[in-house]
Amino acid sequence: MRIAVDAMGGDFAPEAIVEGVVMAAAELPEDVTVVLIGRQSVIGELLNKHNSESAATIEVVHAEDVIDMGEHPTKALSQKPNSSIGVGFKLLKDKQVDAFCSAGNTGAMHVGALFSIKAIEGVLRPCIAGFVPQINGGHAIMLDIGANADCKPEMLAQFGEIGSIYAQYMFGIAAPRVALMNIGAEEQKGSLVAQAAHQLLKDSRRINFIGNIEGGDFFASIADVIVTDGFTGNAMFKLGESFYPLAKQRGIDDEFIAKTNYESVGGSPILGVNGNVIIAHGISSPLAIKNMINLAIQQVKADAYTKIAQVLA
Amino acid sequence: MRIAVDAMGGDFAPEAIVEGVVMAAAELPEDVTVVLIGRQSVIGELLNKHNSESAATIEVVHAEDVIDMGEHPTKALSQKPNSSIGVGFKLLKDKQVDAFCSAGNTGAMHVGALFSIKAIEGVLRPCIAGFVPQINGGHAIMLDIGANADCKPEMLAQFGEIGSIYAQYMFGIAAPRVALMNIGAEEQKGSLVAQAAHQLLKDSRRINFIGNIEGGDFFASIADVIVTDGFTGNAMFKLGESFYPLAKQRGIDDEFIAKTNYESVGGSPILGVNGNVIIAHGISSPLAIKNMINLAIQQVKADAYTKIAQVLA
Repeated sequence: MRIAVDAMGGDFAPEAIVEGVVMAAAELPEDVTVVLIGRQSVIGELLNKHNSESAATIEVVHAEDVIDMGEHPTKALSQKPNSSIGVGFKLLKDKQVDAFCSAGNTGAMHVGALFSIKAIEGVLRPCIAGFVPQINGGHAIMLDIGANADCKPEMLAQFGEIGSIYAQYMFGIAAPRVALMNIGAEEQKGSLVAQAAHQLLKDSRRINFIGNIEGGDFFASIADVIVTDGFTGNAMFKLGESFYPLAKQRGIDDEFIAKTNYESVGGSPILGVNGNVIIAHGISSPLAIKNMINLAIQQVKADAYTKIAQVLA
Repeated sequence: MRIAVDAMGGDFAPEAIVEGVVMAAAELPEDVTVVLIGRQSVIGELLNKHNSESAATIEVVHAEDVIDMGEHPTKALSQKPNSSIGVGFKLLKDKQVDAFCSAGNTGAMHVGALFSIKAIEGVLRPCIAGFVPQINGGHAIMLDIGANADCKPEMLAQFGEIGSIYAQYMFGIAAPRVALMNIGAEEQKGSLVAQAAHQLLKDSRRINFIGNIEGGDFFASIADVIVTDGFTGNAMFKLGESFYPLAKQRGIDDEFIAKTNYESVGGSPILGVNGNVIIAHGISSPLAIKNMINLAIQQVKADAYTKIAQVLA
């Protein structure tokens, strides 16, 4: 298995990325190769600093350019085909790697996925799925958390189906409980889009729809899949993630709250595309990068995107 | 000053409401009268149980009917003019009380306000404002947190103006920092509505607009007024409120997290109407009711709704 990692993406790249990769490799089995993409000389120097003795192999693939965090995604990708993100998607498209991960420009990752490996046929809009820790253990998957700020009811209904398949194969849950984030339990509650999405989700035979949940149910172990638009989802997900730094600042050390730390999962998959693409926070630390790689490996094993394609095709 | 309280509204009414009123009255000055509205015999019996020795007076106004939590607001209000909510709004409209508070049917409270004291002229849509505790002390006011699930940019821009006036007179801040809840800092980020609202807020000369904030800034003491639609606002507000029960369940006792407990403020005002209307959680405890009454008193003193009418007229 080959996991590609953008060495140049993220606020603390390439140092934090290379360090995270070295940390990950130290614990990975022999059959995993981590492919670092970026400026060979810089990465080589950093790798030399770390006394890397791991079973897993670290490979470096050279990419001359870097897409900065502030650059316009589409423009940057077409002007910089030799950027680490451009090269990563080329490798992914050519099946030279099984997954591509980056803490760099999120928009460029999203657009790059759409342009290279492309959306799965039948998928209206790929989305970003966030892992939300649940109070009784495990995670719920929330989608969309930011790719689509404006959603139609049909998109939300499909997020429910995509999330359900993902939860099935990633978490091993036979019939994941799919819920719609809304502002009341009754089906006539909420925005016009939420009301219409509720009906579509209720009518879908592909999922186990349990109805609406509310903001207070976010961590409540009520749902395995939380469906929402990319605006509400992004705002809620970031609020949920703020629990950890807030608690830390207050001197609170708690096992559950620690799971709301962005580092603990390390990344969010783009779902609905023909491949494994994982994006991470710009601020990603080495620990976050390590966990992002583990998430990628888990996702490759689960083969979730092939299952999504099989169901939705 | 006369504060009316719906004795019959809430999951634990009338017991919890009467107990909360007795608690509040024990600490209130002489010039405050709390007017309990509901079935006289029931309230009388409950008041007799409490050894009420307070400077403030508790009055009872009889209302034969009760609007249940699940009833359709408009239908219930027209069919039950003698409900506690119906009577409360009659008193408020006739200026026999200075504020009306209820933990009952939120929809009926909202519709009741629109039908009786009515929206302030020039206000597109009244909204519900939530108090969000801030890490460096005090609260931000977030609006809308649930009255309007679908919002137009003009509504959001006006929420910013209404919230700014409210924060000015309630918190004594000369130029409250108004922020738009969004999914990125840049002004072109977010849903189409958020993008358009950003421009309107930026152009408004009535407010001190500081730009977009994100979900992670919810408690961050960055803004005094947080503008959002009633869907996102409701979901985020309830998620924020869930921090306290979650922490409590984990055995965490923290002064700041305790402020995220819904009981600590006890209510949320409906803003943009010609009077002081405060709604509280259905699950309100006596402590929540007590704090709701204190909020109402503070709001009557600040005379915020008159100021809003003066600015927007």
